[in-house]
Amino acid sequence: MTQELAVLQTAARKLRIHSLRSTAEAGSGHPTSCLSAAEIVSAIFFHAMRFDPANPHNPCNDRFILSKGHAAPVLYAALAEAGALPVEQLNTLRKITSDLEGHPTPRLPWVGAATGSLGQGLSVGVGMALNGKYLDKLDYRVYVLLGDGEIAEGGVWEAAAMASQYRLDHLIGVIDVNGLGQSQRTMYDHDVATYQTRFAAFGWHTRVVDGHDLEEILAALDEARLVKAQPTMIVARTLKGKGVSFLEDREGWHGKPLKKGDELEKALKELPLDGDSRPLQVARPQVPVSATRPAGEAVFPAPTYQLGEKVATRAAYGTALAKLGSVNPLVIALDGDTKNSTFAEKFLAAHPERYFEGYIAEQNMVGAAVGLAACGKLPFVSTFAAFLTRAFDHIRMAALSGVAIMYAGSHCAVSIGEDGPSQMGLEDLAMMRAVPHSTVLYPCDAVSGERLVATAAALKGTTYIRTSRPATPVIYPNTEEFPVGGSKVLRASEDDCLTVVAAGVTLHETLTAYETLKAAGLNVRVIDAYSVKPLDSDGILRAAAQTRNTVLVVEDHYYDGGLGDAVLNAVAEHGVRVHKMAVTDVPRSGKPEELLDVYGISARRIAEQVKKLMS
Amino acid sequence: MTQELAVLQTAARKLRIHSLRSTAEAGSGHPTSCLSAAEIVSAIFFHAMRFDPANPHNPCNDRFILSKGHAAPVLYAALAEAGALPVEQLNTLRKITSDLEGHPTPRLPWVGAATGSLGQGLSVGVGMALNGKYLDKLDYRVYVLLGDGEIAEGGVWEAAAMASQYRLDHLIGVIDVNGLGQSQRTMYDHDVATYQTRFAAFGWHTRVVDGHDLEEILAALDEARLVKAQPTMIVARTLKGKGVSFLEDREGWHGKPLKKGDELEKALKELPLDGDSRPLQVARPQVPVSATRPAGEAVFPAPTYQLGEKVATRAAYGTALAKLGSVNPLVIALDGDTKNSTFAEKFLAAHPERYFEGYIAEQNMVGAAVGLAACGKLPFVSTFAAFLTRAFDHIRMAALSGVAIMYAGSHCAVSIGEDGPSQMGLEDLAMMRAVPHSTVLYPCDAVSGERLVATAAALKGTTYIRTSRPATPVIYPNTEEFPVGGSKVLRASEDDCLTVVAAGVTLHETLTAYETLKAAGLNVRVIDAYSVKPLDSDGILRAAAQTRNTVLVVEDHYYDGGLGDAVLNAVAEHGVRVHKMAVTDVPRSGKPEELLDVYGISARRIAEQVKKLMS
Repeated sequence: MTQELAVLQTAARKLRIHSLRSTAEAGSGHPTSCLSAAEIVSAIFFHAMRFDPANPHNPCNDRFILSKGHAAPVLYAALAEAGALPVEQLNTLRKITSDLEGHPTPRLPWVGAATGSLGQGLSVGVGMALNGKYLDKLDYRVYVLLGDGEIAEGGVWEAAAMASQYRLDHLIGVIDVNGLGQSQRTMYDHDVATYQTRFAAFGWHTRVVDGHDLEEILAALDEARLVKAQPTMIVARTLKGKGVSFLEDREGWHGKPLKKGDELEKALKELPLDGDSRPLQVARPQVPVSATRPAGEAVFPAPTYQLGEKVATRAAYGTALAKLGSVNPLVIALDGDTKNSTFAEKFLAAHPERYFEGYIAEQNMVGAAVGLAACGKLPFVSTFAAFLTRAFDHIRMAALSGVAIMYAGSHCAVSIGEDGPSQMGLEDLAMMRAVPHSTVLYPCDAVSGERLVATAAALKGTTYIRTSRPATPVIYPNTEEFPVGGSKVLRASEDDCLTVVAAGVTLHETLTAYETLKAAGLNVRVIDAYSVKPLDSDGILRAAAQTRNTVLVVEDHYYDGGLGDAVLNAVAEHGVRVHKMAVTDVPRSGKPEELLDVYGISARRIAEQVKKLMS
Repeated sequence: MTQELAVLQTAARKLRIHSLRSTAEAGSGHPTSCLSAAEIVSAIFFHAMRFDPANPHNPCNDRFILSKGHAAPVLYAALAEAGALPVEQLNTLRKITSDLEGHPTPRLPWVGAATGSLGQGLSVGVGMALNGKYLDKLDYRVYVLLGDGEIAEGGVWEAAAMASQYRLDHLIGVIDVNGLGQSQRTMYDHDVATYQTRFAAFGWHTRVVDGHDLEEILAALDEARLVKAQPTMIVARTLKGKGVSFLEDREGWHGKPLKKGDELEKALKELPLDGDSRPLQVARPQVPVSATRPAGEAVFPAPTYQLGEKVATRAAYGTALAKLGSVNPLVIALDGDTKNSTFAEKFLAAHPERYFEGYIAEQNMVGAAVGLAACGKLPFVSTFAAFLTRAFDHIRMAALSGVAIMYAGSHCAVSIGEDGPSQMGLEDLAMMRAVPHSTVLYPCDAVSGERLVATAAALKGTTYIRTSRPATPVIYPNTEEFPVGGSKVLRASEDDCLTVVAAGVTLHETLTAYETLKAAGLNVRVIDAYSVKPLDSDGILRAAAQTRNTVLVVEDHYYDGGLGDAVLNAVAEHGVRVHKMAVTDVPRSGKPEELLDVYGISARRIAEQVKKLMS
């Protein structure tokens, strides 16, 4: 939209006024971080962007991501001035009933992904730009506003590398270089050349502007639209608190609102609306709304294994994912240069156009998945379970974004063997169980592995599938179903002395121990807890009631936070006795069977423990 | 040590032979990743480095960090050829009784920090170089060998920024650009200029070399020693599998050993030891070993609060840390531009020479802390609890390294109020409890806060201190002691109907609920579980036995993995009924007291729940 400079300048002033007023009303917030960005946001919203203020879900809308999420009030102000929100709503900022939260979340439909943990927005932008360029093939642009302080986050550079690698020319970033962090000047203060040099070195088209000079900003945004095969980063020199003399470039004002009354009024006096205050106009997207939902889905083909056949669950994951891709065109996959271990390579082979290589950069891989999910795709993100810990903050923020993402962590725990503890996912269940509304699945064989992958595609929010390195025997018929929240009773008799709950490799160890114990005259109930969260509490309580109220949980995971704790929660209010066997020390390198035994979760150790408990 | 090129060339060949043999013997490992680095490692160990092969703990030794940890066999080979290990020990690679693990861990005293999760070694090097330049003021150099694939990790760029910011001229990195990742060619294959440009943009002195040309490598290493006020990155173009014709630059060989017998022998035939095989010499450090232990420690001064005084535990953290710095000169602090919120700024004010600003880059902050800890310092690392999730993989690896690091996470959970969920640490207890051998502390007032900080400095391994944003009343006298693994019974009577276990802000809510309940004729036992891990299991079991075997846990944390689960574990085998109150949904922005109530952990909700349980 070509509006006169005076109109945009007045818009910037309005954004400042709204930001100061709404934070003063809330009694908290980050007004000075808004003031530095007022001209930038004015130029992006009322000059560069094309979107329909009446429809946040138009797939052709240009996207805006406020990576410096603490400047939320300026985003809300821009949305209000664009007609996307009632202006009066700005006064509800940070109130418990308001969707205008302290940092942006998708409770407000204009927010594609939650921000506020710094350094994540560019990855989200990469995901959205990948979707536009390679999947939906729409010409929308993705604008990301970054703070200068957050550029220190490594995730930003992971995103920068992927953006240039994938030639994302519809991705346009702006860094608001106000030089002031939370507690001191940023690493580079106003040295804009450093930012420019670095993004240029990472393959971006770059331009330095005075972030309070609208003419310069507009020229840079216009130029960005013409750049081909490269993302653009505009480095804008600004002043924190710009526009209010006693706030401008002053330390000690981060995250502080003005006091209502004299202090606020004094500031507002410096921001008279004497410019051109014609109503602001927003350019509409060029392409009409079109449904991109896929045609009716086919049925997921049943697994085709033989009972007893040895197949790693990670291999079953790859097989299932490739099949799922054929029945559901929204399914996409990302992997962090481990695809020949996680078997995401099977999806790549079947659906190369829907696979994105994340290289060894797990944070950005998850952040990009958030962006893709926000565009309606169903991302399956895989790497070693251990390396998903690298992205915990991003996984956490994805949960706040409410998007559906499937994480597959392979090579869990000591059963991987000789590679040693750095490669062993031993805290992944704890991490994933803690995520609100998450689903945690842990198959023990190829049939349950495939079935659970197919099920995952229909789930909301965060889903985690834990797969194992070693090949384990198929124990279920191909027709078996595995509902979320279910479990399987694999061994039962009327005189079971206790219930053993296991999953994954320890389920097989338990089945072996069962035979030893049976030979010794001890019958135990054996339950496969393939659904760790939600756990089949009723099933476990039922089994416990029939087995002397005693449960033994065996898992290949550190002691705290895993399957054992899930079982404890299931029986917590019922006075059932639970005994846990898990990894309590930092493991060594060694053969898988040696490690299972040394760290106390082998068939031999399980049988010993049952005998001890029953003696 | 100036050895003739021929000697070093022969050394490189020996490293190749050892790497091939030991991995073939182990039946697993990454020989081709060793072969690409043979000349580099030969040059670093037998030309550049000064160390005493008889004493890995000489503080003047130059350090070597194998960031590409999967090349462990070439490191072990170099140590053996240097006389630091018996050559025969190489045959124990990856065996369960051997300290030569699949990826390096400090079970071997020459390994300062565990590697194997890629992209962390440069941060460890930053920590070691900070120690040499700013703390111990020793002139040792720190050599870090990186793989090209791991350069995609953002943590590398966080480290790169901090290294140049702190002018770490004794930090010398070498990238082994063999162009091959695990599952495909790396993002930049052999485009060494890209790596050079990027590190130059990040303020490093750089040099490109042929990584198989010893003359070029030596010249670059010699040049690096002369560079002032800048770290150096040597970008070495190499071939994966170099030296064996059927492995060189071939895909499909990552992480695969040669088969013993014909395959191995065929390779070894291409590596005849016809060069100069004079014994290898290692340059010794120039400065003799000197003890850097501090003089005898003074006693930590008691806190000086008034009962009832309102002080945030985060403020007490800062006060205690500053005091601790005065009694223990090994204590250092790092913070991620949140020091005015975590109150690490109090330490900075008192001990500026021992404070390192980590900026907004939590991964590198933790990695640097590992390097500092490996040099004998006691790092206290602080940021918002939520943002420690950013560094989970580094925290995990620090635990594998066995170093003592104290993490302080402030602004936990919903009690922070209006800033909203992105800033709330709601999964930190789950994360930190999962870490093996960790200690998790959670003070509710300033006295316990200070005491626990002082205690933390004497602990081994991973210690986590969780602090809160709101000011809470001081409830303990200044003389009170808080042993790890203890708890405090704050309210007790002979007719208590249940035990409420709480910590932090919910402890205060519980004390308020106690009064309401008492007025209604219901007495409850109240326990402050300030030591979440280890938990005072005996104390809680004792209380439960006296209160109808019923326990209610109230915590400001997501439902899974926190204090509630710790209590469940404590009583698991005893059939006690445990009820949990925790945050079960994604919180909104709002006032702290509103949020506590809406998410079900306020005094009102606690009193309601107790009444319901007792009805």
